[in-house]
Amino acid sequence: MPAFNPLVEKLAPPPVPSVFAWGRAYDGSRGPLIDLSQAVPGYPPHPDMLTLLGEMGGSTAYCGYGPIEGETVLRRAYAEHVSEVYGAEIGSGNIHVTSGCNEAFVSAAMAVAGPGQTVLMTNPFYFNHETTLAMMGVKIRTVSCAAEDGFVPQVEALAAAITPDVRALALVSPNNPTGAIYPADLLRAVFELCRSRDIWLILDETYRDFLPEAGRAPHELFAQDGWEDRLIGLYSFSKSFCIPGHRLGAITAGAKAVEQIAKIMDNLQICAPRAAQAAVARALPMLADWREENRQEIGRRAAALRAALAQVLDWRIDAIGAYFAFVRHPFPSLDSAAVAERLAKQAGIVCIPGMYFGEGQEHYLRFAFANADVPTIALLEERLKNFAAG
Amino acid sequence: MPAFNPLVEKLAPPPVPSVFAWGRAYDGSRGPLIDLSQAVPGYPPHPDMLTLLGEMGGSTAYCGYGPIEGETVLRRAYAEHVSEVYGAEIGSGNIHVTSGCNEAFVSAAMAVAGPGQTVLMTNPFYFNHETTLAMMGVKIRTVSCAAEDGFVPQVEALAAAITPDVRALALVSPNNPTGAIYPADLLRAVFELCRSRDIWLILDETYRDFLPEAGRAPHELFAQDGWEDRLIGLYSFSKSFCIPGHRLGAITAGAKAVEQIAKIMDNLQICAPRAAQAAVARALPMLADWREENRQEIGRRAAALRAALAQVLDWRIDAIGAYFAFVRHPFPSLDSAAVAERLAKQAGIVCIPGMYFGEGQEHYLRFAFANADVPTIALLEERLKNFAAG
Ligand SMILES: Cc1ncc(COP(=O)(O)O)c(C=O)c1O
Ligand SMILES: Cc1ncc(COP(=O)(O)O)c(C=O)c1O
Repeated sequence: MPAFNPLVEKLAPPPVPSVFAWGRAYDGSRGPLIDLSQAVPGYPPHPDMLTLLGEMGGSTAYCGYGPIEGETVLRRAYAEHVSEVYGAEIGSGNIHVTSGCNEAFVSAAMAVAGPGQTVLMTNPFYFNHETTLAMMGVKIRTVSCAAEDGFVPQVEALAAAITPDVRALALVSPNNPTGAIYPADLLRAVFELCRSRDIWLILDETYRDFLPEAGRAPHELFAQDGWEDRLIGLYSFSKSFCIPGHRLGAITAGAKAVEQIAKIMDNLQICAPRAAQAAVARALPMLADWREENRQEIGRRAAALRAALAQVLDWRIDAIGAYFAFVRHPFPSLDSAAVAERLAKQAGIVCIPGMYFGEGQEHYLRFAFANADVPTIALLEERLKNFAAG
Repeated sequence: MPAFNPLVEKLAPPPVPSVFAWGRAYDGSRGPLIDLSQAVPGYPPHPDMLTLLGEMGGSTAYCGYGPIEGETVLRRAYAEHVSEVYGAEIGSGNIHVTSGCNEAFVSAAMAVAGPGQTVLMTNPFYFNHETTLAMMGVKIRTVSCAAEDGFVPQVEALAAAITPDVRALALVSPNNPTGAIYPADLLRAVFELCRSRDIWLILDETYRDFLPEAGRAPHELFAQDGWEDRLIGLYSFSKSFCIPGHRLGAITAGAKAVEQIAKIMDNLQICAPRAAQAAVARALPMLADWREENRQEIGRRAAALRAALAQVLDWRIDAIGAYFAFVRHPFPSLDSAAVAERLAKQAGIVCIPGMYFGEGQEHYLRFAFANADVPTIALLEERLKNFAAG
């Protein structure tokens, strides 16, 4: 057999399926499985969303190839939405629809960095960002985020890591895996840093609709002069609309960046699936209240997790925000993969080992608490108290 | 503004939208626009296909993330289908579903070749294959196909081009842009060549359901011992099911290759859109007769094109097969882009210049005749006779 691409061959297999396998090995003895692994909304999509998806799915109107950059209706609806959320003036020419936010990252990263060039990320990081860059031959440098800073990066540390080979800084806020919410002021300082050092800022805001504070812009970067020449914003419809299986995401960027991204998307898959685009264009304004209710519900789940873990000796939440908590386990002699495996198999709690998100995260577990409802989260207290990891 | 990735920046913009623009500039004076540009079926999907797409689209069952490699039902149904088509034993573990065949190519190519390595293609080539490799930093070498050979490559020429840096040979049969159908014997010889030279063979068979002969395997490669270690087959559901907007394709490969491809797909977009996968799994056996009718209809369209062009002095079909004809225009002093532009604007015939598919194709135009019905194709005779290109 001829060789595979060494960049691909050396990637670890996707982590989520292996974590699921631990969950399947649980015997049920402690009660129902509590799945806090993959970041999927623990509630169904709105019935109107399903009706729209069914309607558009069955229509001949969306069977042909569509515009590479996305359906006009969705680009327009999403541009309006982004303008509102950020208090900015974003036009539909600033939007490129993708088949999910992973593809948005692939396209954005490829638009600004080629093989041998460097992209700066935080540690811990969202693992697909790291494996994506690695498979493309892009070099990665990481800046560590510390527990004492709530896993928010320090601007000085970022500045120190920007050497001439760095083409872009990729950040995730609210963060995956830590949940950390980067303050607007910090993001402003980071933006200025990127401006002064002439690099791109790729900002993945997949979880921005679950911020604890309602109605406040996550940051003001899209309202800055010249944002188009600096910032590429990424978003996912998967979490906010509970439709990851329909694969839809979006990029907000300057027209020139959109032009480069369109060339990439044409190669990757010509256009994102069309029926779901048409459905989401309608749902975006229609389901605003429903999304707000979900935001509040996720807030209650975060509170429930705080309450449950407060009762368990030695387990500590070092960061928590929209969707995720980064939890320090109390077994210093075990790495997080060993703890997560036992937690799944013995206690029926499935979560992702911190180690999967970067070096030095052996003491952490990522709890995707948004997956579980409040009564289920409350079960964690008892389960963790009785868990010996032995 | 910081620089873009030079590999992406130097790509030409996607060609299809610019060709559409020529069509929009046509004033209608010669009758209705005849669109022979993008390869899209000129008839709607079967009503049952739409019903299934609507049903699955509106179901909660496909809203979550799905398996990276594809829905179990589709992998199984497609494996059975491939087994039948090729008289081979293909299991569902040999199938990886993708979001269209462009993504299948991206994933297959990336699995076997990294930046700086070389992939061998034919000239002319399907332009997205070329731009895909270019944007990934993969080097491209081409082997010319000659009009006198009906644009089928010569094995000796391929053999001569395989230097040690070549990791894979990428072929398309039935070919885009020429329509050329590579004989089973030739493909067998090419397969042996790849075996003896220890490189991968990537074979894109997007148009295999439109071969002129019914019920005969396009080739016997999937029945060869050790095919898994050599061959990666690509397919698109876009053309055969008339659903390009739903973005669905598939890869047939050895389990080890599927494993590498899954790592890439996880990064690219986690999984292909799920509802369409479930719908096509059902449609695949159900719509066999309908696909056979379409195959016959495309045959009638090919015959109509032959008949129409036989009446027009100096226009010559140098290759024709499933879906496409590669037509030599009679204006030696004009390149094919100039001819195609005038043909669209003055005569209302939209097609793609041969030049877009490789160097040295200035005298050719690609007619995607499958897009137009027989009466429309018959109009070409009159239109071309009256076309002066002046
Ligand atoms: C930070 C981040 N970005 C992107 C994604 C991918 O989302 P999508 O389903 O839109 O591809 C995820 C999914 O978990 C994520 O956590
Ligand atoms: C040879 C070839 N491969 C792949 C594709 C892409 O097809 P899909 O719509 O499945 O991405 C096309 C589309 O025209 C094609 O001609």
